[in-house]
Amino acid sequence: MTGLLGQRSDLPMHIPSLIERKREGGELSREEIQRVIRDFTSGEMPDYQMSALAMAIFFRGMSTEETAALTEAMLHSGSTLKWPDSAPMRVDKHSTGGIGDKTSLIIAPLLACDGVWVPMISGRGLGITGGTLDKLDSIPGFRTQMSEVEIRRVIEKHGCVMVGQTGDICPADKKLYALRDVSGTVPSIPLITASILCKKLAEGLDRLILDVKYGSGAFMQTEAAAHELAQSMVQTGRALGVRASVHLNRMDEPTGESAGNALEVAEAVRCLKGEGPPDLEKIVLDLCAAVSISSRQQLHDVLHSGKAWVKFQQMVAAQGGDVAALERMTEIHHAPVIQEVKAEHAGVIRRMDARAIGQAVLELGAGRARSGDSIDYAVGCDQIAKTGSEVAFGDVLIRVHARSPAAAEAAEAMIRSGIQIE
Amino acid sequence: MTGLLGQRSDLPMHIPSLIERKREGGELSREEIQRVIRDFTSGEMPDYQMSALAMAIFFRGMSTEETAALTEAMLHSGSTLKWPDSAPMRVDKHSTGGIGDKTSLIIAPLLACDGVWVPMISGRGLGITGGTLDKLDSIPGFRTQMSEVEIRRVIEKHGCVMVGQTGDICPADKKLYALRDVSGTVPSIPLITASILCKKLAEGLDRLILDVKYGSGAFMQTEAAAHELAQSMVQTGRALGVRASVHLNRMDEPTGESAGNALEVAEAVRCLKGEGPPDLEKIVLDLCAAVSISSRQQLHDVLHSGKAWVKFQQMVAAQGGDVAALERMTEIHHAPVIQEVKAEHAGVIRRMDARAIGQAVLELGAGRARSGDSIDYAVGCDQIAKTGSEVAFGDVLIRVHARSPAAAEAAEAMIRSGIQIE
Repeated sequence: MTGLLGQRSDLPMHIPSLIERKREGGELSREEIQRVIRDFTSGEMPDYQMSALAMAIFFRGMSTEETAALTEAMLHSGSTLKWPDSAPMRVDKHSTGGIGDKTSLIIAPLLACDGVWVPMISGRGLGITGGTLDKLDSIPGFRTQMSEVEIRRVIEKHGCVMVGQTGDICPADKKLYALRDVSGTVPSIPLITASILCKKLAEGLDRLILDVKYGSGAFMQTEAAAHELAQSMVQTGRALGVRASVHLNRMDEPTGESAGNALEVAEAVRCLKGEGPPDLEKIVLDLCAAVSISSRQQLHDVLHSGKAWVKFQQMVAAQGGDVAALERMTEIHHAPVIQEVKAEHAGVIRRMDARAIGQAVLELGAGRARSGDSIDYAVGCDQIAKTGSEVAFGDVLIRVHARSPAAAEAAEAMIRSGIQIE
Repeated sequence: MTGLLGQRSDLPMHIPSLIERKREGGELSREEIQRVIRDFTSGEMPDYQMSALAMAIFFRGMSTEETAALTEAMLHSGSTLKWPDSAPMRVDKHSTGGIGDKTSLIIAPLLACDGVWVPMISGRGLGITGGTLDKLDSIPGFRTQMSEVEIRRVIEKHGCVMVGQTGDICPADKKLYALRDVSGTVPSIPLITASILCKKLAEGLDRLILDVKYGSGAFMQTEAAAHELAQSMVQTGRALGVRASVHLNRMDEPTGESAGNALEVAEAVRCLKGEGPPDLEKIVLDLCAAVSISSRQQLHDVLHSGKAWVKFQQMVAAQGGDVAALERMTEIHHAPVIQEVKAEHAGVIRRMDARAIGQAVLELGAGRARSGDSIDYAVGCDQIAKTGSEVAFGDVLIRVHARSPAAAEAAEAMIRSGIQIE
């Protein structure tokens, strides 16, 4: 046996000593965390040290000070959006992902109607979780990759913009997330917190509303885990001067009535016209009310006045999208097979499992099993019945949009495994 | 938030899934462990996955079956020593390292006199822990790097050989240990167990005596930790068909009266002539008696008959060493400054701290702060007084052999911080 751990404690920046300290439950200083992120981003600190440190953090956690230092270090690894002093308040929403969650598409224009700026930087989907960028990409001509100058121009004119991360934003987070994904170190509360917040802080925000999902279709399976993440994000945001509010939302059934890219854009358009399903409109208004100076009733009235719908069309046009396509999404992206899944007996729907539907939608081709996979904008599900509703024999519970009859059959079997009628 | 852990459970050999399973406290199968070690050794499994897995193993441990599978996989990553069916029983001793521990130099020839074969593969020192190979290297001409054919020839003729690991033995262990050393994942009981046992099993042993040290100068600081490692080694050895016995030995003060390479060879020679310090002779006889068919008294008599001393000289000669040098080690490696550290008041020695002496000896140049450092065979300490002994004012407590007066002063200050006289 060789080696003694104590002998290196006099070298504070010796990376193995930092890993050992975290492994034993100690804290890292702000300077040490800055150095780790700087050296990891530059390649000076090898991946094998970072993955071991990430695993130690998984087991030992981080204090609010450490998480804030990590967030700040990743934020400053790249460029950030800068706004003039005279600019309106910047607000954004972040969701930890779910099935059928198209709320961003409605929230951005609705908040912009309220006089704030919404510089929304979103991501792509992976696994059963859909991504806002993929939904937007189903709009013909819509550009999700824009320069900072273009982003600023759209915001200044319309008050909202919805884009992908530019190459310059948080490169440390990109590198760290890719490493966590292949080293079994994804589900760590402080690492998740820092990854989410650094990208949102790069938008130059004043306020942030966090929609933390839990349940079968969510990243966090239990309310306790979701609560822990929510607390971590609020405390870390506060330490960094951003007021973050958190809503915990169950994700046991999909949000709204559809899941799949073009199908969700079509549903978002209906909601923007005041014709969306009640659960979707409710969560949109809940989230917006939490960050807006307007009341929930005022936001409801704006949504039903059609102003947010006009704003959304203006934003789509400003980002190169075909506005006329917005009301024809399911014609433009038309799946050859549309199969109705019908109730085999009458009763009340007790379960409409989000995970089963998410998995079916993924396998239909609407999502990515691994990053880099191409996706099919047309496929997915719509007319998804809500739990608690009464159905008669033969009623449609959900419709599957598929590329082939075989794919539709497989999706129906998977979806039926997640349906319970009593 | 992207990514869902569950989705990959259908791919059993997907490495991130294995890491996640261990992280959550699950077990890996023998086949999975074989695959991990094979792919890690070949370079197909990247270091960043192995270091994350090692950290998960640090926190979650391994079952005896897992540890045995890991040991076996590392053992079979390279070649092993093969012995004819008619060969005598093969026996070896392994120590988890300590300060002034020169027992191997006496045990190998003593057991060989007893009719067994001792194909002892040893390591170099790192940190405050000395290494048997470094001590042997201080003997002019002695060759610690030998081919398997040469090793077999020396064993067949003399019954013992003391060499370094050949390039072909346990390459997986070499690669994994190097990675653990720089990723903060050294002190994991199953990883230590597998690392020690795979190399010992490669010697083709029937029996193994393990000397697990604990205390200030040992790798394991507490008896509980030493006991845990001992249990793990015995159980893993049993699962792999090797009978291992364990002795737990305190390492709060150095073993014997000297620490430093040539100084320790000189002391080992005295012990082989029956003139060694009592504590050194005691631990040698204790360890040998545990694996020998001879009684402790018989082993004592062999040692005092001079047979083991003759055997040692034969082995040294067979490995190219200058036998005449063995009784002149401190003249051949002569430190220019020899400084006596004297008692500042009379009393009973309560503490002669192994770690303080080990650190002083390391800083005098007898050891390596990091692997690859060169070492000075002449420097170190001798005439180390034992705890419990009475001293008068001015008595010599220890002698420092140094390259310069300044180095001697620094060593004395460090050593004094570890001495207590009441």
